[in-house]
Amino acid sequence: MDPEVPLVVPEVNPDDVDWNKGIIANPNCSTIQMVVALKPIHDAATIKRVIVTTFQSVSGTGKKAMDELMNQTKEMLSFVDIKPEVYPHQIAFNCLPHIDVFQEDGYTKEEVKMIDETKKIMGDDSIKVTATAVRVPVFRGHSEAINIETEYKLDANDARAVLAAAPGILVYDAPEKNIYPMQTTCANKDEVYVGRVREDNTIENGLNIWIAADNLRKGAALNAVQIAEVLVKKAK
Amino acid sequence: MDPEVPLVVPEVNPDDVDWNKGIIANPNCSTIQMVVALKPIHDAATIKRVIVTTFQSVSGTGKKAMDELMNQTKEMLSFVDIKPEVYPHQIAFNCLPHIDVFQEDGYTKEEVKMIDETKKIMGDDSIKVTATAVRVPVFRGHSEAINIETEYKLDANDARAVLAAAPGILVYDAPEKNIYPMQTTCANKDEVYVGRVREDNTIENGLNIWIAADNLRKGAALNAVQIAEVLVKKAK
Repeated sequence: MDPEVPLVVPEVNPDDVDWNKGIIANPNCSTIQMVVALKPIHDAATIKRVIVTTFQSVSGTGKKAMDELMNQTKEMLSFVDIKPEVYPHQIAFNCLPHIDVFQEDGYTKEEVKMIDETKKIMGDDSIKVTATAVRVPVFRGHSEAINIETEYKLDANDARAVLAAAPGILVYDAPEKNIYPMQTTCANKDEVYVGRVREDNTIENGLNIWIAADNLRKGAALNAVQIAEVLVKKAK
Repeated sequence: MDPEVPLVVPEVNPDDVDWNKGIIANPNCSTIQMVVALKPIHDAATIKRVIVTTFQSVSGTGKKAMDELMNQTKEMLSFVDIKPEVYPHQIAFNCLPHIDVFQEDGYTKEEVKMIDETKKIMGDDSIKVTATAVRVPVFRGHSEAINIETEYKLDANDARAVLAAAPGILVYDAPEKNIYPMQTTCANKDEVYVGRVREDNTIENGLNIWIAADNLRKGAALNAVQIAEVLVKKAK
């Protein structure tokens, strides 16, 4: 992460394009969708701490990984021995708690990015983040379970209201009708889907949310296009 | 959860069999593997709060769910439209944040069980637990990302040492060699595999761990057999 290069998610920190010196970076896909959901909660109640666990699809790795999931799945169903190539272990019908390389402290680079990028994009170093990033046997879309501690109280209804009013978010939260975000829900969609909003009563001001977004759209190409749109608008 | 019926995980609370009135209950599979891993940490450093996110396989639901994952996977790979029956949504190549029925507060019964059963089995109502339970497209084995806050400091090495010395646990934690627990690691094994042990520096005394266990063994049949073994031993 280069301090000279702004990391921009247009729903969160559009004005950070102003201090670019020719390069504006697109953050990591798992960070982008998280900060879109965190921003309105931070504005309303000041986030102190975030504990996030990700469920990331293989398309985050690229086409070879999608082929690997496809081929391994076929081989498993045909009782053929599989041979992992892109990932260090079998990805078909298995979850790997390993995305990008491991650091000395036991965290992966993906987890460290979620921690550092969140502070930078939100423009607030006091937000504490810890992360566990996991690859799941899904082709497209990342989901995340996010536990949030805030300074001020936000009950579940208040949280839904501030989320619904924020840009780039679709509150998708009617569990009694089996409506909650999933990877299949958000495929080919631009929005970050937010659901399962509930109070975490183990702390004074706690929330649990569950989000899903299309990592190939909001996690990558779409965010870059949105950054370009901000630049064009500002140039007018 | 019946206050008259002990819930027993032999590695954690074997002596709770003593107050049974003819019935001893086997806890929920996702709780069993978690409390096996939490017990030595609680004994060493007193757990204050746990935030758990689960990655649960379809065998937790039963044979029909395993058939559904198998058939939907084949149908998806053959571009045939799928029709969910056991689960409310597609389970092939998708993650569902929905296990058991939803309560009014937005938590599922599975999540509430993890919260309540943990306190009861650990014999300590002061342990605060919040949970997000997720079904993943895996046939066998449950994994869990667990964030733990303790009263006393336990660094990652201390945590590994107390875990390694505890019954029913295999510390499987050498990320530099791509060694960490996965559903494929624990299939047909009795132990709860614990890895990715790392300090969570967002709080004074924090740990992140990642566990995996075979829900068909330690999550069900094996635990029941172990309860019977405790009873036989005590009867001698």
